[in-house]
Amino acid sequence: MITTTSSLKERSLLGLKPLSRSEISSLLDRAAYWESEPHKVIPILESRFVANMFFENSTRTRFSFEMAEKRLGAQVLNFAAAASSVAKGESIMDTVRTLEAMGIDAGVIRLKPIGLLPEIAEAVSIPLINAGDGNNEHPTQALLDLYTMKKQFGDLKGLRVSIIGDVAHSRVARSNLWALQKFGAEVQFCAPPSMRAPELADSAPYVSMEEALVADVVMILRVQLERHTGDLFKSPEEYRIHYGLTEDRASTLAKHTIIMHPAPINRNVEIDDAVVESGQSRIFNQMSNGVPIRMAVMERAMKL
Amino acid sequence: MITTTSSLKERSLLGLKPLSRSEISSLLDRAAYWESEPHKVIPILESRFVANMFFENSTRTRFSFEMAEKRLGAQVLNFAAAASSVAKGESIMDTVRTLEAMGIDAGVIRLKPIGLLPEIAEAVSIPLINAGDGNNEHPTQALLDLYTMKKQFGDLKGLRVSIIGDVAHSRVARSNLWALQKFGAEVQFCAPPSMRAPELADSAPYVSMEEALVADVVMILRVQLERHTGDLFKSPEEYRIHYGLTEDRASTLAKHTIIMHPAPINRNVEIDDAVVESGQSRIFNQMSNGVPIRMAVMERAMKL
Amino acid sequence: MITTTSSLKERSLLGLKPLSRSEISSLLDRAAYWESEPHKVIPILESRFVANMFFENSTRTRFSFEMAEKRLGAQVLNFAAAASSVAKGESIMDTVRTLEAMGIDAGVIRLKPIGLLPEIAEAVSIPLINAGDGNNEHPTQALLDLYTMKKQFGDLKGLRVSIIGDVAHSRVARSNLWALQKFGAEVQFCAPPSMRAPELADSAPYVSMEEALVADVVMILRVQLERHTGDLFKSPEEYRIHYGLTEDRASTLAKHTIIMHPAPINRNVEIDDAVVESGQSRIFNQMSNGVPIRMAVMERAMKL
Repeated sequence: MITTTSSLKERSLLGLKPLSRSEISSLLDRAAYWESEPHKVIPILESRFVANMFFENSTRTRFSFEMAEKRLGAQVLNFAAAASSVAKGESIMDTVRTLEAMGIDAGVIRLKPIGLLPEIAEAVSIPLINAGDGNNEHPTQALLDLYTMKKQFGDLKGLRVSIIGDVAHSRVARSNLWALQKFGAEVQFCAPPSMRAPELADSAPYVSMEEALVADVVMILRVQLERHTGDLFKSPEEYRIHYGLTEDRASTLAKHTIIMHPAPINRNVEIDDAVVESGQSRIFNQMSNGVPIRMAVMERAMKL
Repeated sequence: MITTTSSLKERSLLGLKPLSRSEISSLLDRAAYWESEPHKVIPILESRFVANMFFENSTRTRFSFEMAEKRLGAQVLNFAAAASSVAKGESIMDTVRTLEAMGIDAGVIRLKPIGLLPEIAEAVSIPLINAGDGNNEHPTQALLDLYTMKKQFGDLKGLRVSIIGDVAHSRVARSNLWALQKFGAEVQFCAPPSMRAPELADSAPYVSMEEALVADVVMILRVQLERHTGDLFKSPEEYRIHYGLTEDRASTLAKHTIIMHPAPINRNVEIDDAVVESGQSRIFNQMSNGVPIRMAVMERAMKL
Repeated sequence: MITTTSSLKERSLLGLKPLSRSEISSLLDRAAYWESEPHKVIPILESRFVANMFFENSTRTRFSFEMAEKRLGAQVLNFAAAASSVAKGESIMDTVRTLEAMGIDAGVIRLKPIGLLPEIAEAVSIPLINAGDGNNEHPTQALLDLYTMKKQFGDLKGLRVSIIGDVAHSRVARSNLWALQKFGAEVQFCAPPSMRAPELADSAPYVSMEEALVADVVMILRVQLERHTGDLFKSPEEYRIHYGLTEDRASTLAKHTIIMHPAPINRNVEIDDAVVESGQSRIFNQMSNGVPIRMAVMERAMKL
C-alpha cells in the first residue's frame, strides 16, 4: 500500500461538497496545464492500473476518463454493468473489493444506489473517483463546467449561473451548486414543481424561466421524462414549451451569456437543435474540457 | 488539427465507389507490405487515438480493426452499442462528435441507418473509416476480398466473380461490385427475386445458380432469413436447396475456382459445412487478410 | 507458427485432470515468483496478442486474466458474449478460429457447452486457456485455490478439504478434486442429494454438514438456486439453514481451519456475511492470488 489513509482521502474524489476552494482551484489549474500540453501521451502513470467500473452505463463519461487515463500512460481495465456479472446478483461492493484485491491502483466508479459510494470508499484502500452516483454528485462534470466558465469569464466570483430542468434527479446540479458557491458565484434553479429538490430549498432560489434567462451561464439539464409518469409534463413537446431552451428563448439571452449542457442531449426537448449549435453554446467545449480535467483528477489519484 | 479538409478526404474511407483504381491499388500494395512484416507490433501510430464505434455489433470486424490498430501501436478505445448509452436516445451523430471533441484522431464506425455516414463525415474534422453502414458499403471487407483474389490469381482483370445471396441487403456485394469493376473484373449476381437490388439492375447481370457456379470466384453472402418473413423461403432448408453452396454444387466447380464468404457463416444454410472446410475455400484466409488490409487503411487515416 | 503440436499441448491449459503433479507444482512455484515481483509491469509478453473470449460473462475472472496479461505486457483484446455477434448465431468454434486467423497468439476462453472445449483445442493451433467450461473444469481457479492452501499450510499432502454445495454444477469442485488428489490431499464433498454429481461418486465421499466442518479447508461453492426449481430448497433461507456456512456453524470450526469461496458470493445464502469477513476467511486472498497464478499460466502459454 503506497497511500496512507490520510493521503487516500486526498487522492479520492467522491464529491465537490467536501473540497475546499483551493483544492478545486489546483485541479482547475492542473487541467489548464494538461490542456496546454502539446504531447498526446505523457506516461506519468505508466505501470499504474485503473479500473473504470460503470455500474450504470455511459459512453461519454467512460470514454472521457479512458482518454485521460491513456494520455497519462495508465493501464486501463473497463467494465460496464450490462456486460458484467453484476446482473447475477454480485453486489457492487464485492466487485469493487474484488478489483482492489486484484491490485488496481485506483477505481473510477459510476453507480445508481444513493449513499453507497461513501460506504465503498470506507471499505477499500485505493482512491475512488466518482463518475456519477445516483442523484448525489458528479464531481468531474462540475469541474469541467467550472473550467469552461473560467475559460470564458476569467473569474467565477459574482457569476450568475441558472441551472434549468430536473434538479431533483440531477447530480450535475448538485455538484455545480456546491462548487460554484465556494467561488462566490450566484446559483439559481429553474424547474417545474415536480422536479424540484426539497432538500436544496435553502441552498439556492427557484426562479421563473424568464428570470433564469437573465444570467451569465444558462445550464440546461437533461430531462428524463420516463421518470415523471403521471406528471404535468406528459410529452416532450409540453416540456419543451414550458422549460425548453427554444430558439425563441435563446434569442432573448444577453450576448455574453453562454449555454451549457452536460449531455447527452435530447435535441428539441430541453434544448433546441439550433441552440446546441449556436455561437453561444459551449456544449462541445465542455466535452473537450472533460479530458484535461480528468487527467488532473487521475494524476492526483494515482501519481506516485 | 493536423489534417486539412482536402487531406481529410484522402484519409477517410467511406466507401470504395468514389476511390480510383490507383488509390485502391496502393492500399492493396501496402497491405502486402504489412503482411510480410515479420514484427507483430510496429508502433508507427504511437500516441495516436482511435475509437472503434460499433453502433451495430460485430465481434469479427471490431477484432480485426483492433488487431490492426494495436499492431501499429495506436491507442484504442472501443464501444459497442449494446454497452453504450446510445440506447437511451443519444444520437449516433452526437456520439461521434463527442468523441471527436475528446480528441480522438480517427474513428472506425459501423452503423445501420442508411445515408447517415456521409452526413457525419461532413460534420467532423477527423478521418472516419466505414466498418459497414446499412446496406451501402463495407469497404475494408471488399478490400480484403480483392486482396485475397489478387493473391490467388495475380490480376483482377477479366476475373469472373459470382456474388450469390441476399444482394439487396448486402453492403459487401456493393463494395465488391464497385471495386472489382474498376479493375476490369466481371461481376455477376445470383439471388432470388426478393433479394435482388433494383438499383443495381444496370450494374451487373443476374444469372441462374448454375451459371453462377461457372466463375473464378464464387462469393457467398450471409443470408438473414429473419429479414424475409412472408417470403418464398420460409426455412433455412428451403434456402439451402435453391441457393446454398451445397457439397453437390461445390463438386461442379472448376478446380481453379475459389470460394469466399464474408462471415459470419450460417453453416448448412447458404454454404455447407464441408464446403467451408474444403481446399477451394478461402474463407479463413479472408479473415487473416483483413488485418494487413486494415493496417493499411488505419495507417493512411492516422499516420502523421 | 512458433509452437509445434507437442509444445502446443504443453502451453494450453484445458484442465488440471490431465496435468502431472510436477506440472502443477511448477505453475504454483512460478506464481510465487510473480507474486514476489516488485514491479507491476514486466513486459515479457510484449508484442504478443491474447484474446479473452467470454462466451459466458464473468467480471471477476476476465479482470483477473486481463490484469495478469497486462502485467506481463501483452496486447489484450476482450469480448463478452452479450456484446458480440455470437448472439446472431455465429458459432463459438467459428469465432475462435476467426480470431486465430487474425493472428492472436493465445486465447482465454469461458463457455457453457460441455465438451466443446477439447474439440476447439483440436481445431486450432494456438494455446487455449480454460477460464471455465460448463461444469467440467476451471483450472486457474483451482490453481489459485491450491496456491492459497499452500501459502497457509506449506504442504497439501494430508490436508482435509471439504467442498460444500452444488457439486453437480461445479467446475470449481471438479478442478479442485483432480488437483488436490494428485498432491495427496483428502477431498470430501457435502451436498444435498439433488446437487450431487453421480459420476464423481467413486472419487470422493459425501459427508454430512457436521462432518464437513471438521477439515483444514472448508470450501463453500456458490449456489444458484434458479437451477434447482421444484427442488427441496425452494428458498435461499431454506438452503442457508441446511447447507449455509452460518456464523453458528463457523464458530464450531477449528482455529486453524480456513474458509474459501470461489466467488461471486451470495452473502447470507451459502455463507453468512460475517463469515466472509472473518479472520479465517481467505476469500479476498484467493482473488489476489488469482493474478500471479494467471501470470504463470499466461507466461507458460505465450512466452517465446
